[in-house]
Amino acid sequence: MLHARKRIEIVVEAVQAEAVTDLLDRLGAPGWTIQPVLSGKGRQGLRRGGDPGGVFDNVLILCIASEAVAQRVAEARDELLGARPAIVAISDCSVLRGEHF
Amino acid sequence: MLHARKRIEIVVEAVQAEAVTDLLDRLGAPGWTIQPVLSGKGRQGLRRGGDPGGVFDNVLILCIASEAVAQRVAEARDELLGARPAIVAISDCSVLRGEHF
Amino acid sequence: MLHARKRIEIVVEAVQAEAVTDLLDRLGAPGWTIQPVLSGKGRQGLRRGGDPGGVFDNVLILCIASEAVAQRVAEARDELLGARPAIVAISDCSVLRGEHF
Repeated sequence: MLHARKRIEIVVEAVQAEAVTDLLDRLGAPGWTIQPVLSGKGRQGLRRGGDPGGVFDNVLILCIASEAVAQRVAEARDELLGARPAIVAISDCSVLRGEHF
Repeated sequence: MLHARKRIEIVVEAVQAEAVTDLLDRLGAPGWTIQPVLSGKGRQGLRRGGDPGGVFDNVLILCIASEAVAQRVAEARDELLGARPAIVAISDCSVLRGEHF
Repeated sequence: MLHARKRIEIVVEAVQAEAVTDLLDRLGAPGWTIQPVLSGKGRQGLRRGGDPGGVFDNVLILCIASEAVAQRVAEARDELLGARPAIVAISDCSVLRGEHF
């Protein structure tokens, strides 16, 4: 009834989001969801969204995909890291509809 | 110290969110959190939030619950899919306070 | 190529977010990401964001960290619960860059 899939979560600057979703599309991801980020702290220090230019705004891209797609995302490491993501995290999940993911 | 629970994540149109949270309530979920979604791509194509009518806006509903509740959510598949969710994903997590979830 | 880490997710009132991120900083977390929450239901009943004072607004704090940091977060239970979080959930994930987390 439930089907094992991978949950890929990428936090990246909003201006880089399309580069990441284009990559996910090319690697065969069935879809993705983009969520807003208010602020964050990481290797680049503190960053807050909402500044006038919006250039520091981050977003979170969530992608549920097969193990094979997740493997290709990991293998596309160099291209993915070119978008300078703050986070690329992959975890296990199950989905109701195996035919969709 | 940590207690095993399930993490249920549902992406659905904002207008369907209440149908989903009502279902979670009836199935015994101890609570849920609704997060905004900026845009997404799936079987229905690309969708962006923020249009004047707001009818295409998606939200992400996060619910931490017991294995038993997660089982009931999976069994309520037909009713849940009636809300046409883009994603229904379930994963494992641990919580600090077993008495709350 | 992928490195096992922990994914810590904390839902808390916006006014308590800094207390939580200060704690994560002190416990050695390499960073964190704050996401907005629209509304939620829990032991305190229903809560909706966007009220004039904003005092009921929740946020979701996401932190990817080592097992050791996650352990310290669990051990700092009393201080963490002092911020009255609605959710503290920890799960497994893998990251591309082990040197960052």
